Amino acid sequence: MAKDLVSEIDEIFRPRSVAVVGVSDKVNRLGNLLLYSFVDMGFEGMIYPINPKEETVMGFKCYPSIRDIEGPVDLVVVSVHPRYVPGIVDDCVAKGVKAVVIFSAGYRERDEEGKKKEMELVEKARAGGVRIIGPNCMGLYSPSSKISFFPGMPKEKGEVAFLSQSGSLTNIMGFFASLRGIRFSKMISVGNASDLDVNDFLEYLGSDPETKLIICYIEGVEDGRRFFKLAREISKRKPIIIWKVGETEGGNRAVRSHTGSLSGSKEIWDAVIKQTGLIRVENHIELIGFITAFQNPYLPRGNRVVVMSGPGGPAVSTADACEKAGLKLVKLSEETKKKLAEIIPEFGTSVSNPVDLSLSSSFDVEMYPKATEICGLDENVDMLVEVIPALNKQVIERLIEVQKRVRKPIAVITSIEFVTAGSQLGKLFGVVSPEELTQTLMRMYQSGISVHSSEQEAAKALMALLKYKEFLEKNR
Amino acid sequence: MAKDLVSEIDEIFRPRSVAVVGVSDKVNRLGNLLLYSFVDMGFEGMIYPINPKEETVMGFKCYPSIRDIEGPVDLVVVSVHPRYVPGIVDDCVAKGVKAVVIFSAGYRERDEEGKKKEMELVEKARAGGVRIIGPNCMGLYSPSSKISFFPGMPKEKGEVAFLSQSGSLTNIMGFFASLRGIRFSKMISVGNASDLDVNDFLEYLGSDPETKLIICYIEGVEDGRRFFKLAREISKRKPIIIWKVGETEGGNRAVRSHTGSLSGSKEIWDAVIKQTGLIRVENHIELIGFITAFQNPYLPRGNRVVVMSGPGGPAVSTADACEKAGLKLVKLSEETKKKLAEIIPEFGTSVSNPVDLSLSSSFDVEMYPKATEICGLDENVDMLVEVIPALNKQVIERLIEVQKRVRKPIAVITSIEFVTAGSQLGKLFGVVSPEELTQTLMRMYQSGISVHSSEQEAAKALMALLKYKEFLEKNR
Repeated sequence: MAKDLVSEIDEIFRPRSVAVVGVSDKVNRLGNLLLYSFVDMGFEGMIYPINPKEETVMGFKCYPSIRDIEGPVDLVVVSVHPRYVPGIVDDCVAKGVKAVVIFSAGYRERDEEGKKKEMELVEKARAGGVRIIGPNCMGLYSPSSKISFFPGMPKEKGEVAFLSQSGSLTNIMGFFASLRGIRFSKMISVGNASDLDVNDFLEYLGSDPETKLIICYIEGVEDGRRFFKLAREISKRKPIIIWKVGETEGGNRAVRSHTGSLSGSKEIWDAVIKQTGLIRVENHIELIGFITAFQNPYLPRGNRVVVMSGPGGPAVSTADACEKAGLKLVKLSEETKKKLAEIIPEFGTSVSNPVDLSLSSSFDVEMYPKATEICGLDENVDMLVEVIPALNKQVIERLIEVQKRVRKPIAVITSIEFVTAGSQLGKLFGVVSPEELTQTLMRMYQSGISVHSSEQEAAKALMALLKYKEFLEKNR
Repeated sequence: MAKDLVSEIDEIFRPRSVAVVGVSDKVNRLGNLLLYSFVDMGFEGMIYPINPKEETVMGFKCYPSIRDIEGPVDLVVVSVHPRYVPGIVDDCVAKGVKAVVIFSAGYRERDEEGKKKEMELVEKARAGGVRIIGPNCMGLYSPSSKISFFPGMPKEKGEVAFLSQSGSLTNIMGFFASLRGIRFSKMISVGNASDLDVNDFLEYLGSDPETKLIICYIEGVEDGRRFFKLAREISKRKPIIIWKVGETEGGNRAVRSHTGSLSGSKEIWDAVIKQTGLIRVENHIELIGFITAFQNPYLPRGNRVVVMSGPGGPAVSTADACEKAGLKLVKLSEETKKKLAEIIPEFGTSVSNPVDLSLSSSFDVEMYPKATEICGLDENVDMLVEVIPALNKQVIERLIEVQKRVRKPIAVITSIEFVTAGSQLGKLFGVVSPEELTQTLMRMYQSGISVHSSEQEAAKALMALLKYKEFLEKNR
């Protein structure tokens, strides 16, 4: 059946036409945003607004009901009061719709009554051959088939899939990651996951050739055994980063009222994550940093790291963070030190690890790249962490070039705000312009240079990269 | 003697005139930046460039040596090769200079020979009644006396003092914090702290009426006993946030080659921090968040928190982060829940804690402020954490107003990048413009609303605020 599920979901991701229920030309409704998302993405199939009281919506001919549409309808998006949803599912069944995204909330996450209603919907849909995504979700985004759940999402394809039980988080991550030069193959917000659930989509993403890296935001899964098997199996082919919430009493309560899931015991999840090679993050900032690290084409051979920094204080703090995370600051060979001494000023610097380039590195754009090449080619070095407070354009371009020869993970700790703020001082120091930021970041990631907000996050991400490489070796 | 030291340092902070050694009109030297820093700040006293080979530098009359200046010279800044420094210190002594900032490096942090040279400088200066700041440091910044160590620093005064052994960190924090609406009373980079050290400046800041909150970046202190006494004493009057580095083998090594300090054992520092009411952070992002929390005019009574969020996922994650940090998600009273139900939509939301406002809060700017007022006035609530992914202008203005009645710490978790990126979507959703950001943040802090990058950081900061309040109660 696995093959069938994968093909079935793949078809849902490539609808020939979509209908949106809960739209209006007269009132500003959330459904309008959902409809406009398809327009904005440049969806190439037919778009059908549904509203019995209107002739046209946003310039599209409006239909009283799904049944009234002449051509085939593959995907339906519903944003109406729960009392109207059963009738719409009936319409979907009658029309032979493949899947219905139910944005509407008020189900399992609400109360027992809601849970009953949700089960009735699923029963009805399954009997009629229609799959449900949701309820209480945003639905699907896929740039390759030009579908989206919100306007303004990136049109370019990427290799990262985001699978989430939180709709607005999917939305936020879409924009935030996009600003940071991360592009997605698919984003899936499953909400209450009444029919197609986290496991189903995880299985699909495991086989999806567009997806190289999977991110899961999880509140709880129904079939833990299946999740374990899937995670373990897929992790051998592509890394899965997991953000598991609902680990405390307060968090658990929040999960119940958010998607009605059972978050499960922390101990069990800790064990599952350890045994399946899953990579864990705790917040969206870590997630962004980890994604960039796991897009790295190079895996570290061991835990021996070089820390390099212009500012001396952050060099110390980064050294601490690395060793606390389990990395080891490698002793540089005498030869490497000698080479460093040739390019680094005599005073206020250090050619031992951490390598302190001093304030001079703000004026001499060759210092970071040259020191990176020297240390990176030292065979005792497995990876590099570099503190570059503001991304200087020339420094970054040269680093990308040097990385072609180094071919080891390089993690850069920087403040993206220095770039987005676009200050006069930034211009003076040759900082990447706000307009160039996204493209510059993309090229950094592709070349094997990840970008991080803090020393702790960078160290954690590199350690996770090493652990994942060890998981792969154990599970060849 | 304490009184004398305080007055002595206060005079150093208010020089009538400054001389900068290591400047040139012909070559682009670092000293030029140091000189220009005074010009840029609008320093009102005399500025004297020193260079025997030039007539003028940046339009100022240039002097062959400090001794040749006609009027009095209070502060000298030196950025030359170490071999010339002893002669300049001699000149300072001869001229009756109050203090000399030695930017030059190559001393204790370098080797035994450097340590010897540093001790000789100190001996010479002390014998001649001149105080040394540094070597290997940036020196002093004080908007009230219009002195600075780098161009482009904020001209406005604030109530936060930054005392640091890392010069470039001081510099970076100056810009970063400034972007985030934080203003300083003084910034002090002591470098190797050969003469005036962390303890001296800490004592000074403890008595400085301009300073309400002290930040210390510390690699190691010479006189641990004095530091302990000072920290314990000053903490009773104003909070001290400490970023202590050099806690691992790699970090220790880095400290030795950075400022030549002895970082001391982690265990001792842990004990010192605990007993003195010091507030600990681990990186610059935490530091920024903590500063905003400790500028809060309201201290929490207890650990009972309400989490409030538009997006449901972050609500769960924030609930987890709060409880892991030691805060307790309070059960809201039936009355509070009833009031919340009146302003929050029926579906896809939650009126229990965490309060889930749903995506609707992106459209209805009254939801956050109204819910904040309802929860904030519940007497079982000690503080609030609110996830507001993008700072909506109207929401923030209303929150500032509501906080006048709530009068309890409110911590907002948000992505400043959404603001600085200044996207079209941001405009559509009424997000604060990049130009308004700094002023908006300042007004938030003043009103008692702190701003944080992640749920973990916000929770940690609120917990630190509570612990500090308990320290104050124990040490009345």
